[in-house]
Amino acid sequence: MPETHHREFSELPITVDRELDAPLPAQIAAALREAIDQHTLRPGEAVPASRELARRLGVARGVVVSAYEQLIAEGYLSASHGRGTRVHPELEGLEHSTHPQLTEQKPLSKTTVIAAHTPAGTRPLSPGLPDTSAVETQAWRQAWRSAASHAHLEAPELGDPLLRSEIAEHLRRMRGTTRPAEDVIVTAGAREGLSLLLSALGTTRGRALTVGVEDPGYPSLRKVAARHGAHIVALPVDAEGLVTEQLPSGLLDVVLVTPSHQYPLGGSLPLARRRELLDWARRTGAVIVEDDYDSELRHSGSPLPTLAALDDRASGSVALLGTFSKTVSQALSAGFLLVPENLRRIVEPARRDLGGPVSAVVQAALAEYLASGELRRHTARMRRRYAARRELVVERLFGTPGIRVRPMSGGLHAVIELLQGSAALESLVVTRSDHLGPIPLSAYWHGQGTGTGAETSRYGLVIGTGGSLDESQFDAALRELREILTRTAGF
Amino acid sequence: MPETHHREFSELPITVDRELDAPLPAQIAAALREAIDQHTLRPGEAVPASRELARRLGVARGVVVSAYEQLIAEGYLSASHGRGTRVHPELEGLEHSTHPQLTEQKPLSKTTVIAAHTPAGTRPLSPGLPDTSAVETQAWRQAWRSAASHAHLEAPELGDPLLRSEIAEHLRRMRGTTRPAEDVIVTAGAREGLSLLLSALGTTRGRALTVGVEDPGYPSLRKVAARHGAHIVALPVDAEGLVTEQLPSGLLDVVLVTPSHQYPLGGSLPLARRRELLDWARRTGAVIVEDDYDSELRHSGSPLPTLAALDDRASGSVALLGTFSKTVSQALSAGFLLVPENLRRIVEPARRDLGGPVSAVVQAALAEYLASGELRRHTARMRRRYAARRELVVERLFGTPGIRVRPMSGGLHAVIELLQGSAALESLVVTRSDHLGPIPLSAYWHGQGTGTGAETSRYGLVIGTGGSLDESQFDAALRELREILTRTAGF
Repeated sequence: MPETHHREFSELPITVDRELDAPLPAQIAAALREAIDQHTLRPGEAVPASRELARRLGVARGVVVSAYEQLIAEGYLSASHGRGTRVHPELEGLEHSTHPQLTEQKPLSKTTVIAAHTPAGTRPLSPGLPDTSAVETQAWRQAWRSAASHAHLEAPELGDPLLRSEIAEHLRRMRGTTRPAEDVIVTAGAREGLSLLLSALGTTRGRALTVGVEDPGYPSLRKVAARHGAHIVALPVDAEGLVTEQLPSGLLDVVLVTPSHQYPLGGSLPLARRRELLDWARRTGAVIVEDDYDSELRHSGSPLPTLAALDDRASGSVALLGTFSKTVSQALSAGFLLVPENLRRIVEPARRDLGGPVSAVVQAALAEYLASGELRRHTARMRRRYAARRELVVERLFGTPGIRVRPMSGGLHAVIELLQGSAALESLVVTRSDHLGPIPLSAYWHGQGTGTGAETSRYGLVIGTGGSLDESQFDAALRELREILTRTAGF
Repeated sequence: MPETHHREFSELPITVDRELDAPLPAQIAAALREAIDQHTLRPGEAVPASRELARRLGVARGVVVSAYEQLIAEGYLSASHGRGTRVHPELEGLEHSTHPQLTEQKPLSKTTVIAAHTPAGTRPLSPGLPDTSAVETQAWRQAWRSAASHAHLEAPELGDPLLRSEIAEHLRRMRGTTRPAEDVIVTAGAREGLSLLLSALGTTRGRALTVGVEDPGYPSLRKVAARHGAHIVALPVDAEGLVTEQLPSGLLDVVLVTPSHQYPLGGSLPLARRRELLDWARRTGAVIVEDDYDSELRHSGSPLPTLAALDDRASGSVALLGTFSKTVSQALSAGFLLVPENLRRIVEPARRDLGGPVSAVVQAALAEYLASGELRRHTARMRRRYAARRELVVERLFGTPGIRVRPMSGGLHAVIELLQGSAALESLVVTRSDHLGPIPLSAYWHGQGTGTGAETSRYGLVIGTGGSLDESQFDAALRELREILTRTAGF
């Protein structure tokens, strides 16, 4: 490990540009990531003191602190009492592959996409529903109007070329992921994308697949894998996400992960684990399915680029599942699968045989909507709304005995842990609050033996902060939930 | 067999109503079918002489002859020299189940739906493309406009309830198939519907499926089955369709059939074979997948009701695949799967796990379009156009040496047989006419050993009569094809 010393600002290629969309902390964080990836800053090395860097850049100190916090959360930096903030020493031990995606990345805009996850419900705190009350703008209507006049078009099985290229551009701007449009295959959503991938892999490997899933994790993709006859293996998760050091060798064909925002616990997989996961996949030949379901709905800090951005374009391991279906509205039923060239070679024939499921009209409308920039504007509005609701959840439930609102940096769900939880208590709370729509936290566990670290309760509630309610209805539902929790859990 | 005698007209419940949409021959045929199914007319019994029936009904004799021809083609009647026209004697030997769908059926309107089959191409005689030049009517635009304003909706996994009920109504009016909306599951088209069914059956049976396919037959569904890891068994086809007496016992899990209009040869499965097929499925536990891809685009006679209409609603064997995707336009990507209650019990959980692929906006637009009656009007227009093109094919190719245009009662393809055909000759013709888009007839065969009766050549061309060309372009393409055929095949 190199000797700790503070790097002079002049040695580091950090600039900020107030004309850019991206917030200043995100610009600083991106520049530091690049410096780390290019070895300008080495593992263990101290970064400039925040006060000094802020002065040099002419920004408030809070801006730099915010950038550092973001990088600490991602695992690029580590902070220890008395030693200051440094490049994470663990980055030293890992195979260090400099990826063009990472080094070339642009400062990320905070405008974001939500990909909500659970089926519709009309109960006010059901998780997974986005707020669609503000979707129907002029741009939306215009997109459908022109799309409907393209009735003579048949979308190619892999997707409308215009849409594929808009999605590639979206990934570049919003997810730090620079890939050609040919790597994008249009799907009817995350589940359909996974289904396609598993069909392709199943035919190729000629046997039932073994699929690792995060535990706890979202049951939806797990069920798709089971429908494909896969054996499901539960993998432990802690507060940072998948515990990559415990991955088995030579057992898994596929692993399903939510690196940007673990569902439901909310962890963001640190860089060291991302690299470990990629190395493991390369070693074992497994395919990593990255479920990027709500990564851009982050309200604090900015998200890491996708895992796919760290992957090899020609001979990679990561298949990225995205969905626009619920970005704007659950009515769209459209998403994408991003696959490197080696996986394209097996996914493309499968798609040609099975047919493309997404209407050419939908694809044309979505392409126009993306091209208009309206998706970015809409998502920015929604992110502010969800952030405000998140704060309201914390505020309303603060001080309720026997519970803890789990920290969450974004998305449209909240996890309320029952501190002295048991199956019986959870069941009682869920029964009493059923009309509000929460899901029991224990429902996200697959196995019995695995689970999170000691810091997380297995029992609690998952509630949604989306849904097309007005703010007073949302507030009323929270107040009622607090009453029920106080009566039931507070003893 | 009862003694042959001519039934008096007064004993038979036949009436015609000139106010109805349905053509007079179709009305007469429907009344006769009903009489046969209710045993008012018994197997072997002679029907009234056409001249006599025409006089009594006050219609031209040709109208009655046309109705009889239709019923002969369907296998309800048989005509033999010297014995006149009688109810087909073979109907005696088969299990006779009187089905409410068949006996209650209304005279079928000839307004119809096309479900074209092959992927897009820009060559003028490519098979499978519908003519979409007249789709964009006021009703079409209105349907999309209102659908786009329902962005807050999420379609349930089984489909928009409004659309499911419009499809049930469509099947009742157009396909003589009366089933509750709950039996209809919305799909992204025929391939996606088959994929769903095979997923459900695969999970239930817990092993690779064995799927029988018509040979020759359309490769598209066959490939979907192969993607599901199924073993494919080729089944012989003759001029009337699947040769049901050669079905193997205890081998097949699923059989894929095109009973209304065999693809590509054009046969319509006679009633006796339909009953034999259903009996076989009941005995062996096989599921019959009925691909009803263009049954309502018939220009001569009216189609038999679906095979599903003869099936048991509660404990049946037939899963009907339909598609609207190409009815109006290949841009829709929407269809349906109609399954009896026993199959619903396994298909519904599979759909819930895999997710519904069709955008709620598309479903809302299609439901409104169906409800407006525009689909019926559009299809009636298209049917006339395809019939005229069909006639032009016959006219332009008439007298071309070495070929025969296979008789075809509807649809939007034509089969040109090479009478002294060989693989080499076919390949030469296809190469020379490739820019026009024909598909070699031999490409539709799966096996080597199976095939049609001696009356059909294995070699030839399949051309499309759809496509959004103007009539002079279509004519020019035919004239060019004739030139190529004369040069190549006429020796």
